[in-house]
Amino acid sequence: MTRYKINDIAKALSATVVGDGDFLVSGACEPADAAPDQLAVAMDPRYGAQLSKGQARAAVLWQDADWQGLGLVAAILVGRPRLAMAALTRHLDDTSNPPREIHPTAIIDPSAQIGANCSIGPYVVVGAGANIGENSIIGAQSTIADGAVLGGDCVLQPGCHVGRNVHIGNRLIAHSGVVIGGDGFSFVTAEKSSVETVRETLGDASADGNDQTWLKIHSIGGVVIGDDVEIGANSSVDAGTIRPTRVGSGTKIDALVQVGHNVIVGRNCLLCAHVAVGGSATLGNGVVLGGQAGVADNITIGDGVIAGGASKILSNVPAGRAILGYPAVKIQTHIESYKALRRLPRFMRDFAAPKKPVSKPPRKD
Amino acid sequence: MTRYKINDIAKALSATVVGDGDFLVSGACEPADAAPDQLAVAMDPRYGAQLSKGQARAAVLWQDADWQGLGLVAAILVGRPRLAMAALTRHLDDTSNPPREIHPTAIIDPSAQIGANCSIGPYVVVGAGANIGENSIIGAQSTIADGAVLGGDCVLQPGCHVGRNVHIGNRLIAHSGVVIGGDGFSFVTAEKSSVETVRETLGDASADGNDQTWLKIHSIGGVVIGDDVEIGANSSVDAGTIRPTRVGSGTKIDALVQVGHNVIVGRNCLLCAHVAVGGSATLGNGVVLGGQAGVADNITIGDGVIAGGASKILSNVPAGRAILGYPAVKIQTHIESYKALRRLPRFMRDFAAPKKPVSKPPRKD
Amino acid sequence: MTRYKINDIAKALSATVVGDGDFLVSGACEPADAAPDQLAVAMDPRYGAQLSKGQARAAVLWQDADWQGLGLVAAILVGRPRLAMAALTRHLDDTSNPPREIHPTAIIDPSAQIGANCSIGPYVVVGAGANIGENSIIGAQSTIADGAVLGGDCVLQPGCHVGRNVHIGNRLIAHSGVVIGGDGFSFVTAEKSSVETVRETLGDASADGNDQTWLKIHSIGGVVIGDDVEIGANSSVDAGTIRPTRVGSGTKIDALVQVGHNVIVGRNCLLCAHVAVGGSATLGNGVVLGGQAGVADNITIGDGVIAGGASKILSNVPAGRAILGYPAVKIQTHIESYKALRRLPRFMRDFAAPKKPVSKPPRKD
Repeated sequence: MTRYKINDIAKALSATVVGDGDFLVSGACEPADAAPDQLAVAMDPRYGAQLSKGQARAAVLWQDADWQGLGLVAAILVGRPRLAMAALTRHLDDTSNPPREIHPTAIIDPSAQIGANCSIGPYVVVGAGANIGENSIIGAQSTIADGAVLGGDCVLQPGCHVGRNVHIGNRLIAHSGVVIGGDGFSFVTAEKSSVETVRETLGDASADGNDQTWLKIHSIGGVVIGDDVEIGANSSVDAGTIRPTRVGSGTKIDALVQVGHNVIVGRNCLLCAHVAVGGSATLGNGVVLGGQAGVADNITIGDGVIAGGASKILSNVPAGRAILGYPAVKIQTHIESYKALRRLPRFMRDFAAPKKPVSKPPRKD
Repeated sequence: MTRYKINDIAKALSATVVGDGDFLVSGACEPADAAPDQLAVAMDPRYGAQLSKGQARAAVLWQDADWQGLGLVAAILVGRPRLAMAALTRHLDDTSNPPREIHPTAIIDPSAQIGANCSIGPYVVVGAGANIGENSIIGAQSTIADGAVLGGDCVLQPGCHVGRNVHIGNRLIAHSGVVIGGDGFSFVTAEKSSVETVRETLGDASADGNDQTWLKIHSIGGVVIGDDVEIGANSSVDAGTIRPTRVGSGTKIDALVQVGHNVIVGRNCLLCAHVAVGGSATLGNGVVLGGQAGVADNITIGDGVIAGGASKILSNVPAGRAILGYPAVKIQTHIESYKALRRLPRFMRDFAAPKKPVSKPPRKD
Repeated sequence: MTRYKINDIAKALSATVVGDGDFLVSGACEPADAAPDQLAVAMDPRYGAQLSKGQARAAVLWQDADWQGLGLVAAILVGRPRLAMAALTRHLDDTSNPPREIHPTAIIDPSAQIGANCSIGPYVVVGAGANIGENSIIGAQSTIADGAVLGGDCVLQPGCHVGRNVHIGNRLIAHSGVVIGGDGFSFVTAEKSSVETVRETLGDASADGNDQTWLKIHSIGGVVIGDDVEIGANSSVDAGTIRPTRVGSGTKIDALVQVGHNVIVGRNCLLCAHVAVGGSATLGNGVVLGGQAGVADNITIGDGVIAGGASKILSNVPAGRAILGYPAVKIQTHIESYKALRRLPRFMRDFAAPKKPVSKPPRKD
């Protein structure tokens, strides 16, 4: 088991050590669960009391914590807790560094280019003309289609699928089951479809639209992904029609997210779990979409927009707006409407009440 | 084709046989579709009339059914239909019992422990130090990461991915595409982010937040799953930060569900399709979340809570409550608000009406 | 690089050529991005102005476009733009036509039937008694379970999983990660469960329901899929209980969709991303469900119904209706309620105002 010196951890956190900086810990944990050789993480006074439930002798604490009063022999004092957590977990992450080898069962087309120091796992398939940058790790049973390009220092967990016409920058992290470059969901009928009619009229469709045949619009535009993107388990980024679907650098995508064809996602966005972005939508930079948020096709969301969980965004949103609801509107507008709705049943009852005769005798039953 | 004796099926159902218990059937089906050698399933009087549309000579019927009047030679009489269905389908399930062998193409690290009588399918990859209990079946092309632990009698369908730091109990059933132990979606900015600002103020963000860089909080806490858990196709259970994400024994998870990092799911819960549980949320025992329900991060849901389909749970819920809506509230509260909302347009029109002059002449146009 | 003659493209589009029909292009792109050898796609006058930003010498334009005034040497004039896009992208799609061979690493049970001219990719596993029609392409690392049947001209992208008791027609397109035939999510408790109680009473559950054990109802009914169906990345179609789950011919299913057990989906439906269809629901022909729409279990949706994005369909819907909202109602009803809700806060304030004494002095604070 790896052991870490308090001084070394503090250095990784750019944080202050108090007490015995040479104290050794075997890992981090919650304060109440700590064994004597574990580093308790209690970066807020609210969690300080938990320390006495565990056996920690060292902890990461808030800035002015009374570490001696808490009975510790050593502590690391930090300011912004989650920022410290990023550095701490990175320092303690013992992700197995796989042997930098091409597994003998990997099937790599002779015309593919594999950069120096890559790890290509068992049963991986790499197509003709594909190009993988140096230091990249391709997990077991992933497939890289003909001509696809990955940058350097990428990590694909086992079972990822990268399609044709896909260009990916450096340092992508893709979790298992990610699919990049599947076909867009794009179909058309020979005659005007019932969907088109309803979009125009907002009235009913007609039941006789039920035998319309859907013709496929092929997806030959591929996908372009910038640097430092992360994509969660079983998410899908579809290929564009004639231009690429784009995901900007620094954007992070959670598990089970769908990014439709022709979509443009800006830089440094966060798309939480189960987000669906409809075809040809455009997201600016720094957009944050909460879990299960949805974006209708063909709309535009400005820079810095924050959408709360389950927001359904059905029309364009100006930059900087914080929104919520279905349909999504400004958070304050949503809250105001929502509060009024909750008062509405009583409001209607009160309104109706005066109509009753004032002298009505009590019912006997 | 396997043939089943009515008496044997009835025994499996702990149910009563009437008529010829030695009658043989080749399988079960809906009453209207039944061939003469099939067992019609019509456990409610509503479905009795369907029997005459098919050719069944034997059926599973409700308790006081007139099986002879329905023209059958044999019947099994049951009380609670779905409970009978559980026993019936289990009895008839001919899931191919794969040869208990380690396929020669499976790549198993020499340090991994494989229990007696396991089936390890083609192209499976099992990492160093992994441990798989006896009688478990690992479907083709699944991967078990270094150090992961699975109990006995587990079944992983083809293409499942179990990550590092994952401990799974006995009798897990995981359908294809399940990912257990992918990284949590946890990021932080060096300075206060636009999301933090909006959470505090509920006001707008500022568009200049769009160049914030997201730093990754690593997921070193893994996942702990109890006994008798089932997880549907393409669902994902993310690893915790420094403590494990937990799924309690007896909990059943449908397809395309996301369980976030640090989440605690209690015992005997049901999470239906497309449910998303945000990071660090806690679910009690016996919680039922309908399809597409969402749980915000960091909230607590008490024991026995039932959330209807598409409920979006944005705040803590006390034990035993039945909820619905976005945001989710008590079902009765939701229905009352909803009914009032439907009446609201007319209510507003009626309210406005008296303001018009009573003697206003009709418009001519 | 393949080059295409304008005349040939126009023929594929059944469209008119103006100018030099022998002009060669290397592919299609958006007008502003066009290199001199690319075919700009600007099928609506709105996009005409973009042409001057690119270098296109040939374009696909709307019917009465002034192609010479736009500075082109050749143009193809089309009527219905998206219909033209279907033909254009099909013509230009250079999907690598894989060598029609059975890869030596594919593991095919000797009792399986593989039609003429199939391509079976690396590490594919085909079970006993499975049957794959001619000209089908099975991508790398896909699995076809014992006894499963696929028609001719099917394309499974890498990493698809087809379970037992699954019958698929001709020309299926399945994108990576598709799972067909996983078990349905169907459980029952020995005694009446808290869910049943809540469904009956719409009141609260009781917290003591939390130790109910869920018994599995097995899925032995399989799946039947018609001809010309497409299924997007990481979608799942669950097996039925004792009868098959059915997806009708011509139906298109987007990425990350869940089709529950016993569901019947009609012909020529569109199910957009993240749709969830609950168990035993029935969809007619030509039904269109927008992204993130949900269908409760056991309900019936008539032919030609159109549901807007994120609609949550909680009760039966008659044929031809266009619906929206949670719960989904007629679009016009939804819009009317929604507009009233937005006016409600002011309405309540205005209503309350007259109650205040008219002569109330201004507050001093």
